[in-house]
Amino acid sequence: MINKLVEQIKKKDAPIVVGLDPMLNYVPDFLKKEAYSEFGKTLEGAAKAIWEYNKAIIDATYDLIPAVKPQIAMYEQFGIDGLKVFKDTVDYAKSKGIIVIGDIKRGDIGTTSAAYATGHIGKVEVGSKKYSLFDEDFVTVNPYLGTDGIKPFVDVCKEEKKGLFILVKTSNKSSGEFQDRLIDGRPLYELVGEKVAEWGADCMGDSYSYVGAVVGATYPEMGKVLRKVMPKSYILVPGYGAQGGKAADLKPYFNEDGLGAIVNSSRGIIAAYKQEKYASFGEENFADASRQAVIDMIEDINSAIK
Amino acid sequence: MINKLVEQIKKKDAPIVVGLDPMLNYVPDFLKKEAYSEFGKTLEGAAKAIWEYNKAIIDATYDLIPAVKPQIAMYEQFGIDGLKVFKDTVDYAKSKGIIVIGDIKRGDIGTTSAAYATGHIGKVEVGSKKYSLFDEDFVTVNPYLGTDGIKPFVDVCKEEKKGLFILVKTSNKSSGEFQDRLIDGRPLYELVGEKVAEWGADCMGDSYSYVGAVVGATYPEMGKVLRKVMPKSYILVPGYGAQGGKAADLKPYFNEDGLGAIVNSSRGIIAAYKQEKYASFGEENFADASRQAVIDMIEDINSAIK
Repeated sequence: MINKLVEQIKKKDAPIVVGLDPMLNYVPDFLKKEAYSEFGKTLEGAAKAIWEYNKAIIDATYDLIPAVKPQIAMYEQFGIDGLKVFKDTVDYAKSKGIIVIGDIKRGDIGTTSAAYATGHIGKVEVGSKKYSLFDEDFVTVNPYLGTDGIKPFVDVCKEEKKGLFILVKTSNKSSGEFQDRLIDGRPLYELVGEKVAEWGADCMGDSYSYVGAVVGATYPEMGKVLRKVMPKSYILVPGYGAQGGKAADLKPYFNEDGLGAIVNSSRGIIAAYKQEKYASFGEENFADASRQAVIDMIEDINSAIK
Repeated sequence: MINKLVEQIKKKDAPIVVGLDPMLNYVPDFLKKEAYSEFGKTLEGAAKAIWEYNKAIIDATYDLIPAVKPQIAMYEQFGIDGLKVFKDTVDYAKSKGIIVIGDIKRGDIGTTSAAYATGHIGKVEVGSKKYSLFDEDFVTVNPYLGTDGIKPFVDVCKEEKKGLFILVKTSNKSSGEFQDRLIDGRPLYELVGEKVAEWGADCMGDSYSYVGAVVGATYPEMGKVLRKVMPKSYILVPGYGAQGGKAADLKPYFNEDGLGAIVNSSRGIIAAYKQEKYASFGEENFADASRQAVIDMIEDINSAIK
């Protein structure tokens, strides 16, 4: 799957991923009205509105982007109805030929970690039959529990040719509370980065490992160090745009081959129509605004890294 | 909710929680047969078998135990069908008057963490209407992202009178890879423990905070230190029984009031009928075997801590 991701990034000349993190207040009123008139102001109604919103954004952008990254929390907050839309979104994006990174940040141990891996990137056995479940292409995983938490995911990756992005240095302000603390003179995130390189060493694609890392755009100095610590790991970079990360800061996340990183934007793309810059599209044409925001983002990033 | 948990523990004289972590191979064959004959070897069939299994165990033990802890991964691995059983299990346990600790180990930042908190212990707004979703009483949370990841959960706890258990020192073998590393001469888990005490300081119940911690039974020396670092935090203790933790080691996790910790057993209770010790119950009476295992566990722990 890492080969497919690299291939898509090259083909579309776009090292970006669109975060499908639909807050209900991002969804245009007319979509909500339509959904509520059919299902009422119910969980089903909310789910329907979010589904139509996601679908329109995928339709308007899939030819430009290698991947989408639905954040499962935004669906889980609507319970079962929300999770059905998560699943439908995964399937729909894949049907359009783009890669799906499930931003699930799961992390547990042993059989429990294996169960998460099964549910998201593997297959479950019922009697003699096997079923795929949420079936993302990549998922994000939390490293706090150590190798016991990661290995079950890696095992499923090998079997199913899927991939991981492991949290190393997150984009938020308080990420330093634990991640930056010095251990034998080096920050915790560096040790986690070293482990990522180690976990990924025996599941290599053509030029990159199936095991990648998450490093926030908001910490470019750390990104520079981590790029060297794990040269074969793809870096998923959140925090560009709305969270304050700038394209000019992104160069250190990439390798000399121009590859090695994929930059996420969520709100900046999916709620582009709410920005002054794209207001002229109008709410009805929210998906066209998202398309223009994707074009602008690709140009912004490519001009900074090339 | 922490007051209700303490009250239930006192009333039942049982500082334990039953982990409802149903692997399909724990479920007795006759239950699977019944379910498959109705739904086939499908996800629905697996979900039905697990539901009947959980229901029988709750029916056989609810008068003895203060709480259950369903591990969401075990349900998530069956996709939407599994998650419906998770929700049904939460509701059913609550209808029997016991407390539900959702073992979800979620962790993200800002609005995303808020979305998880909403989905599991809060209410979501659709138009002007509010809905409860999975609606557990407590959830487990991962601390790797720092305060930004925890605060949204704490905010919802305050509003809804719910509670948290934050991962501090996990029970698995590789937990030391990051958690034991020394920072200014003290292990990371101690710093996380201090933060737990800090996060919990302003949401106190009568004698304990709404914000508790997870500390594995397999590390009693560390449990002793952590008990002092966070005296007002309830400690959820996994790793007893099947994972190797012994009752004799549990005393340091409790305060002098005989409270302050709740010990989990999953496999040891729900799959008791598979142990030689309880084999005489027979597979048909698996739930009675679980009841006896609960009685034995309560006695084992009380004799060690009193």
